[in-house]
Amino acid sequence: MYRVKILPEDKSIDVLDGETVFDACCRAGIMIQSACGGVGTCTKCIVQVKENVPAPSPHGIRNLSSTEIEQGYRLSCQLKVHQDLLVEIPPGSRFYGEQILTVGGASAPDVDLDPNVRQYYCQLPLPEIHDQASDFDRLARALVADAPDLISGLDQLRELAEVLRENDFRVTATVSGRRLVKTEVGNTRGSVFGMAYDIGTTTVVGYLLDLTTGKELALASRSNPQAAFGHDVLARGDYADKGPEQRKELQHLIVGCLQEIAEECCEKARAPIEHVYEVTFGGNTIMTHLVFAMNPRHITVSPFTPIWSRAYRVPAIEIGLKLSRWATVYALPSVGGYVGGDITSGIIACDLERRDDLTLFVDVGTNGEIVLGNKTRLISCAAPAGPAFEGAKISCGLRAMSGAIDKVSYDEAEKDLALHTIGHHPPRGVCGTGLIDAVATFLRVGMVDPGGRVLETDEAKEKLPPKLAGRILASDNGSDILLVPKAKTLERRRDLTLTQRDIRELQLAKGAIRAGVDMALKVWGVSGADVSKVLIAGGFGNYINPAAAMAIGLFPPDITVDKLEFVGNSAAVGAKLCLADRKQRQRVERLAREIEYIELSGRKDFADVFMTAMLFPGYEES
Amino acid sequence: MYRVKILPEDKSIDVLDGETVFDACCRAGIMIQSACGGVGTCTKCIVQVKENVPAPSPHGIRNLSSTEIEQGYRLSCQLKVHQDLLVEIPPGSRFYGEQILTVGGASAPDVDLDPNVRQYYCQLPLPEIHDQASDFDRLARALVADAPDLISGLDQLRELAEVLRENDFRVTATVSGRRLVKTEVGNTRGSVFGMAYDIGTTTVVGYLLDLTTGKELALASRSNPQAAFGHDVLARGDYADKGPEQRKELQHLIVGCLQEIAEECCEKARAPIEHVYEVTFGGNTIMTHLVFAMNPRHITVSPFTPIWSRAYRVPAIEIGLKLSRWATVYALPSVGGYVGGDITSGIIACDLERRDDLTLFVDVGTNGEIVLGNKTRLISCAAPAGPAFEGAKISCGLRAMSGAIDKVSYDEAEKDLALHTIGHHPPRGVCGTGLIDAVATFLRVGMVDPGGRVLETDEAKEKLPPKLAGRILASDNGSDILLVPKAKTLERRRDLTLTQRDIRELQLAKGAIRAGVDMALKVWGVSGADVSKVLIAGGFGNYINPAAAMAIGLFPPDITVDKLEFVGNSAAVGAKLCLADRKQRQRVERLAREIEYIELSGRKDFADVFMTAMLFPGYEES
Repeated sequence: MYRVKILPEDKSIDVLDGETVFDACCRAGIMIQSACGGVGTCTKCIVQVKENVPAPSPHGIRNLSSTEIEQGYRLSCQLKVHQDLLVEIPPGSRFYGEQILTVGGASAPDVDLDPNVRQYYCQLPLPEIHDQASDFDRLARALVADAPDLISGLDQLRELAEVLRENDFRVTATVSGRRLVKTEVGNTRGSVFGMAYDIGTTTVVGYLLDLTTGKELALASRSNPQAAFGHDVLARGDYADKGPEQRKELQHLIVGCLQEIAEECCEKARAPIEHVYEVTFGGNTIMTHLVFAMNPRHITVSPFTPIWSRAYRVPAIEIGLKLSRWATVYALPSVGGYVGGDITSGIIACDLERRDDLTLFVDVGTNGEIVLGNKTRLISCAAPAGPAFEGAKISCGLRAMSGAIDKVSYDEAEKDLALHTIGHHPPRGVCGTGLIDAVATFLRVGMVDPGGRVLETDEAKEKLPPKLAGRILASDNGSDILLVPKAKTLERRRDLTLTQRDIRELQLAKGAIRAGVDMALKVWGVSGADVSKVLIAGGFGNYINPAAAMAIGLFPPDITVDKLEFVGNSAAVGAKLCLADRKQRQRVERLAREIEYIELSGRKDFADVFMTAMLFPGYEES
Repeated sequence: MYRVKILPEDKSIDVLDGETVFDACCRAGIMIQSACGGVGTCTKCIVQVKENVPAPSPHGIRNLSSTEIEQGYRLSCQLKVHQDLLVEIPPGSRFYGEQILTVGGASAPDVDLDPNVRQYYCQLPLPEIHDQASDFDRLARALVADAPDLISGLDQLRELAEVLRENDFRVTATVSGRRLVKTEVGNTRGSVFGMAYDIGTTTVVGYLLDLTTGKELALASRSNPQAAFGHDVLARGDYADKGPEQRKELQHLIVGCLQEIAEECCEKARAPIEHVYEVTFGGNTIMTHLVFAMNPRHITVSPFTPIWSRAYRVPAIEIGLKLSRWATVYALPSVGGYVGGDITSGIIACDLERRDDLTLFVDVGTNGEIVLGNKTRLISCAAPAGPAFEGAKISCGLRAMSGAIDKVSYDEAEKDLALHTIGHHPPRGVCGTGLIDAVATFLRVGMVDPGGRVLETDEAKEKLPPKLAGRILASDNGSDILLVPKAKTLERRRDLTLTQRDIRELQLAKGAIRAGVDMALKVWGVSGADVSKVLIAGGFGNYINPAAAMAIGLFPPDITVDKLEFVGNSAAVGAKLCLADRKQRQRVERLAREIEYIELSGRKDFADVFMTAMLFPGYEES
């Protein structure tokens, strides 16, 4: 274990020998740009090593200038840690998720800096016998153009007379929506902050924005602490259904997490947390219910109705979040129980509803959410993919972490599988992307047939090169495929294998998403060829190998691989848009009302579509 | 002291020997109708004596039927208490203040029963796979015609799923404004109540209304407990200015008083207090500030600006009023620091802004508020009359209570003054109406000249009949007028006299109001002859003898006595209108914005007008 200290955060990370700085930073919530998937070619991830500068990697030598190399610049994805390091991450290498604004063929959204919370410095005319307007009316009059229909709570009114008179009616007014939230003596403008969150079932990421400049100042992330009550939302829904106490407990956990993230961001940016006036978040519908301590029970059982699906604005203090005393929380609207605020957020981030060309938006996760549309119409559906893509239910499944097999290919020279693990560590299991890669490879080399059946050992010996055939092991339920023998694993306790059942789990997961895509195309009355772009969103989606995705038939074959784009954490981007520009809220609210939702379980043709969708490409009915 | 028990309240009142049941009930906040001023002719005040039935009074014999007399019905204004009594007040004799709706030549306002809080019973379509609207949207859809743009707090949403499903989506929704405040299983309609208050500096009166029928169910009144911190609003303003603790203390007192009144009303009407969802009140601007714990300091010093003057709506719980958990308080808007919500309330009660004819509205009290207008325009001003009309600053001044001289006339036969005291008790002092009556009489008989000077003793002997002359006593500061010699007073400690200074105090008070009236007429550009009605409002105004008011020149001489009308407690009526019909709120808010306010102290011509206004009729400059 080595210690890598990151500047300018001044944060230390414990790193296993051989892990890259890029991976280590990701783990620690310090996000770095990357476009090549960490293979050392895009140069977006450069960092500057300040102490113990190691020799440059071959990719570094090829892609960086000699001056950069001399100054200690290295590609963080190639920079393996073999000693303690001091590393500075230049602003240009930071990944904030905004690259979405310029990818996907869309014009960048017309985001103004027009946040819901604003500050105005006013010099009011002094009261006199011929102008006896009340103190509040005097202020409201001055703000009428910027904040029409101003209202105020009692606390603010109670202080108003004193504050106005302390410096001859020169004051700074902070206005949230229509509401006066603070009046301060003199000109105190310039200290208004907001937090935008992507509240995922697994991970929560928060971003601190300066709402007077629009600049993003810091980000921080945490695992969702509700995981203690269930890895997926359904399990948490069951727990929440037990009673109000349990709902309060789940709320307390997630809000505590939001609080920690806000505190970390404010500390990093040296922003006073009591000046954070506004919070936005996108989350799936169940997570949103849990943030508000509402019972999501009826989302989880047919006919899957949420209590609430609109946008919601509430004082932060009402959910226990302690920022400015007057901070408000804005939850992005859901379309329904399974198309939540994370998806509506992604839609505005990608400008989906403004595009001329038909575009498919897919968020790959435990639930695959699918939106198909353009500026004329949007239709959505949710596919219950299950947790296979996150490594759960897979015999040697693992989250994407050090030692997880994340890439599997076929080595033509060796005539065998080639495996890659995160951090180049001894392997411990397979993560979701590795699973897709593996199955894509199995299909290509013929270890698995297009129906999803693993070859039997005899069959394998006949049809496959010896090394591959040697990996097929007989088992009680069909055959297993050996990835790593026990002796080469980290724990050295058992072989890492993918079983027939693992392949079936993957088929179910990819089949669900593919069925959703097929159904959306069917409802629209088009084929994949009519789709000009496929935007793949979600933390997981980011790491999928496009060729592998096509190889397992995640998308119809008439969607060509060049149409796939990875749009990263679009849920966070939409939340940031709504934080920076209140007009984006009207936009997302209108969108959420207008988008059509297809309940797959309510369609008679779904079973057929799903059965077909589970098959791999090349399957022909005999 | 005797005990009178009142039915159906079952309330016992301690009564001095000889006090009337009418007066005793008034003191106890049980209000009885009267149109003749308590002289036994209108018969509106009849009550039924149930135990210890006394002989009928001469007025009773003259005005009641023999059957009524047999059944124990008596005129309460003539019914003097000389023993314990059990008395029932029939509903027809109750005074609720509504007579204003039909007096003053105005059409009754078009009051609908359309309160801000409403209940709806709904049977919602059940959720199914082809109708997955959220629970809230399902309810909002059903209420869209009655309650468009429905919103909801978190607490209500948290309960919603359970409540809807307990009886197959048959629920009763209670909606306050746009906000869903309660959803109950099944049909529970019919239990929605509201309180309307007139919050006076001296007295607070509250009325309980059934908001499903519009019926008034009960009233109760209390002395304003803030009186402990000052009899008038200025003294309380000084106390409030000491700090937030003091403001909280004053708020606590007045809100405690509102709470007691609400509890008493609910007990009388057997209405559950937790079903009181809405509160309205009219109060002067300082009282309104104190209800909300705002510092009224700057209203009391030039240029007299309030912190807030608009209508205000706030959860009742925020000011500490404990009714329904979701009750809201609506304060009627002020025009400015000295024309408050009591006056805007009176204006809508009297339909002032809808009248064709020019009408003068005057609220006589410590501050006289004057509104002149019709449907084309309304102008207002406030005249600082001071407390003389309430008996303060007058050497033998007394509030209107037992033993107060309330009527003074000239007995032609005796050639002397004739005095009347409340309750026919031995006199203890002079109340405001008695003071006006007395001075009117002094002017008529020549004891006081039109300049306000009391005759000197020599002059008196020369010009006046001997008994009157005998009442003029020499003193250090001009002459005194003897009303009652020591031996005939209750306490037998000193003569009751009105001094030259007392007369001057009355001149200041009436001069202020008269100057306000004159100034309003001047600004409008009309004379008193153009005014078709003078509406006199306020508890005090109700008891003024119109002829005496004219005799002291409270109004310009070209306003004839037949134009005067007494409209009672119009502040309460406006509050009730706003409780019963939310459209009245828009009306009063528009009115408050549009009404013009003349700041008398800001006018150069005011000093002259005021000097003239202090003189009595008949004064000619020498």
